[in-house]
Amino acid sequence: MAKNITLYWGSGSPPCWRVMIALEEKGLQGYNGKLLSFEKQEHKSKEVMDINPRGQLPAFKHGNNVVNESYAACLYLESQFRSQGTPLLLGGAEEQARMYQRMFEAQTLLQKLSDVIYYTWRVPEAERHDSAVQRNKEALTTELKLWEQCLQQVGEGSFLAGKSFSLADVIVFPVIAYAVRFGLSLERYPHLGQYYSLLKDRPSIKASWPPHWLENPQGMDTLKDL
Amino acid sequence: MAKNITLYWGSGSPPCWRVMIALEEKGLQGYNGKLLSFEKQEHKSKEVMDINPRGQLPAFKHGNNVVNESYAACLYLESQFRSQGTPLLLGGAEEQARMYQRMFEAQTLLQKLSDVIYYTWRVPEAERHDSAVQRNKEALTTELKLWEQCLQQVGEGSFLAGKSFSLADVIVFPVIAYAVRFGLSLERYPHLGQYYSLLKDRPSIKASWPPHWLENPQGMDTLKDL
Repeated sequence: MAKNITLYWGSGSPPCWRVMIALEEKGLQGYNGKLLSFEKQEHKSKEVMDINPRGQLPAFKHGNNVVNESYAACLYLESQFRSQGTPLLLGGAEEQARMYQRMFEAQTLLQKLSDVIYYTWRVPEAERHDSAVQRNKEALTTELKLWEQCLQQVGEGSFLAGKSFSLADVIVFPVIAYAVRFGLSLERYPHLGQYYSLLKDRPSIKASWPPHWLENPQGMDTLKDL
Repeated sequence: MAKNITLYWGSGSPPCWRVMIALEEKGLQGYNGKLLSFEKQEHKSKEVMDINPRGQLPAFKHGNNVVNESYAACLYLESQFRSQGTPLLLGGAEEQARMYQRMFEAQTLLQKLSDVIYYTWRVPEAERHDSAVQRNKEALTTELKLWEQCLQQVGEGSFLAGKSFSLADVIVFPVIAYAVRFGLSLERYPHLGQYYSLLKDRPSIKASWPPHWLENPQGMDTLKDL
């Protein structure tokens, strides 16, 4: 079944990683995965553009069905392979509310992380301002504190939406790991740290860990002062 | 049942409007809705902050379950009231792929619209650059052309994901209507225009049309040159 699934992905991209975790959790190992290089601009290559006219990764195809947005691909996979592997959508109303809410709050977290991490890459030199850098850092710190609080509320050893692993964890964990890779202090955010430790060795996550992070375990220190 | 649903909303906000359309489609009229004013900063009031610590609208509660993110609230409502009103999740794999893909591409469209519409509101005067304004407009034009193409492909009279109305339409329509409100030329984007015409009089959409747009039908011309 997994042979008719194609995933073009880039190492370390949280959206790509989400889809890879979902594929692992749904028992879809053996899919046709292809690692591309952002540095070499391979995400703008014809083979990607044919699937994803936005020239972004992930680019994902199941049979003839194209689903490139990472949330879309995860929801699609859960729906198409519902009875296979880990059930990723929780049943109870309370857990479901938390699961969906956390899933979509993660977009804000990733956005604010990217605003800080990629500032010089995204903003042309003539348009850069220290005041903007400072504001982005403050906005990210406020956001990180909301996540720290929220993880404190669910308690140690708990997944994001409750006792079971869910789509919220598939979506959020890569974003947390990405913050850690860029130097976030888990001493300053101990509940984020506990959550990171709880999940980092989960088989689906370990099997899909970004290869260039494995090759070079030393991350960056962009976020060390937050 | 709808009496234990509370929605704080702002007029003209696509995220708020989505939740209102979903509530209408699921037959949940009679919910406890409260219109707040962005101008008067009522989205930062204690009653909102108690539900949504980000101080944003929508702020949504069903019983004790808080689901503030608009996508999250729509998915939650469909899941909790599956057998009631319009089924919003499509069944077939092909339609489902399109539905999820369009739903999440809409975030890019809304982001790029906001980058243009709210530039002077979001960027302090000392940090504004004509080059950034120009780049934002070009990025929005590219994005609008992708949507125009995609609506051309589904064909006149079709909903976003196929023959049936779905969550993709709930999520995307308010974004298109918002672009129109800010002056997008539907002569230049005729397939967006056809889609807009197809949906604007749908009962759920008409019933939840932004009240200040009704009071003052004259929109802005921010996007007229795109």
